[in-house]
Amino acid sequence: MTVKHLSMPELADACRESGVTNVGLWREPVQTYGVERTAKLVRDAGLTVTTLCRGGFFTALDPDERAAALADNRRAIDEAATLGTDTLVLVSGGLPAGSKDLHGARERIADALTVLGPYAEEHGVKLAIEPLHPMYASDRCVVSTLAQALDLAERFPAHQVGVTVDTYHIWWDDQAPAQIARAGAGGRIHTFQLADWTTPLPEGVLNGRGQIGDGAIDMREWLGHVTAAGYTGAIEVELFNDALWARDGREVLAETAARFVEHVVR
Amino acid sequence: MTVKHLSMPELADACRESGVTNVGLWREPVQTYGVERTAKLVRDAGLTVTTLCRGGFFTALDPDERAAALADNRRAIDEAATLGTDTLVLVSGGLPAGSKDLHGARERIADALTVLGPYAEEHGVKLAIEPLHPMYASDRCVVSTLAQALDLAERFPAHQVGVTVDTYHIWWDDQAPAQIARAGAGGRIHTFQLADWTTPLPEGVLNGRGQIGDGAIDMREWLGHVTAAGYTGAIEVELFNDALWARDGREVLAETAARFVEHVVR
Repeated sequence: MTVKHLSMPELADACRESGVTNVGLWREPVQTYGVERTAKLVRDAGLTVTTLCRGGFFTALDPDERAAALADNRRAIDEAATLGTDTLVLVSGGLPAGSKDLHGARERIADALTVLGPYAEEHGVKLAIEPLHPMYASDRCVVSTLAQALDLAERFPAHQVGVTVDTYHIWWDDQAPAQIARAGAGGRIHTFQLADWTTPLPEGVLNGRGQIGDGAIDMREWLGHVTAAGYTGAIEVELFNDALWARDGREVLAETAARFVEHVVR
Repeated sequence: MTVKHLSMPELADACRESGVTNVGLWREPVQTYGVERTAKLVRDAGLTVTTLCRGGFFTALDPDERAAALADNRRAIDEAATLGTDTLVLVSGGLPAGSKDLHGARERIADALTVLGPYAEEHGVKLAIEPLHPMYASDRCVVSTLAQALDLAERFPAHQVGVTVDTYHIWWDDQAPAQIARAGAGGRIHTFQLADWTTPLPEGVLNGRGQIGDGAIDMREWLGHVTAAGYTGAIEVELFNDALWARDGREVLAETAARFVEHVVR
């Protein structure tokens, strides 16, 4: 998504040029290019697909909408398996129109996971509940903290349901380091994502994620937390940012790789 | 602030017309009209000043800036005493430019309160730390949850330092009801404020607070929490909203009073 303006073949080429060997993919561009075709493309390019984003949106009240969401999430699990990744990231959904019941919405997420956890396991895929920043609680994701995500995930086996740790969503939370330890102890850190926090936030607050190093988040500190919790998996950089998307995609990828080295691993 | 486009005398008139007998004031319009003059105006109008907003901004690293902040907060305490309110609301401040150290910033808030708590007590004023929504953590307030606010407040006597409970900032937090109980048990709920959560958020996310009843927050539920915690003080409606400010102030005040009856107390 960081370079969503690149086509799939351009993405594969740009990864090769930048020395990037792992890539997290989103469903929409994969579907546009074709799931099998994308799987072959990344395989031929020597790329490992770290995660597929995203399933979720489990909070509808209408039974038909709920059935449609389950069906769509089964397809997402199938797609993940075809792409060769073992992790599907979940954005769980906001409040239904007119509802003020956060607790009920969170329980409907658990209901959906009861169905989807075993289906994912059969396909060799783990589900990764992503707590989103509380500013998305009404319209996108009623799971706002790692603690809430783990309260849900821990109702299921860790190889079925874990969490996504994304710095952008949790950096403000002084409880998050302890929750990362909790997640790691349970084998539930299914992916680790980075974006920096910059202000002012844009209208709608969706596409203002900062390039690594541009904002308020100490990336090394969070890497230290997940590492101390035993996480050894891939680290994804996921930047929704209109200003980045207005630039050349290869340049953005190269810059992101350089920032990653400078602010995260060096 | 809900009707900030009204002058002080217009505000007093509009309160009388709407049957509003309590008003929370902000420092800037009070200073513009004059502190003593405002005190006389509200006294003559039979209005009780519930709180003064706002002190705070304690997180600077520069010693001169820190001294200036302490001096300004002493003035704010003096102003509160002159206006006859016993509560000064605190917006604690964000990260200094270039800093990524949330913990250090929170400790500097405690340092300031060590000085200001006794000064406030001498003047019959209580300080009310307001946790602001996590979307303001970098640029406005590093205190993002009631738990964090209470962790700070409890270092001091309750008659010196407590918290502001504002639905807009905490509605997403499943830990907030327990923290309200904690605050109530300690006698630390120094004010209770309402605004509704509506989306999409505007650019900068400052002036998008929803009119009561327009958004995702169940106001009666939160009133229930503070009531169960023993709170019997005033309830303030504080709406930063460009659309409301574009309308006639008396009409907005009357609408707000009607919404309050419909969605909160009836």
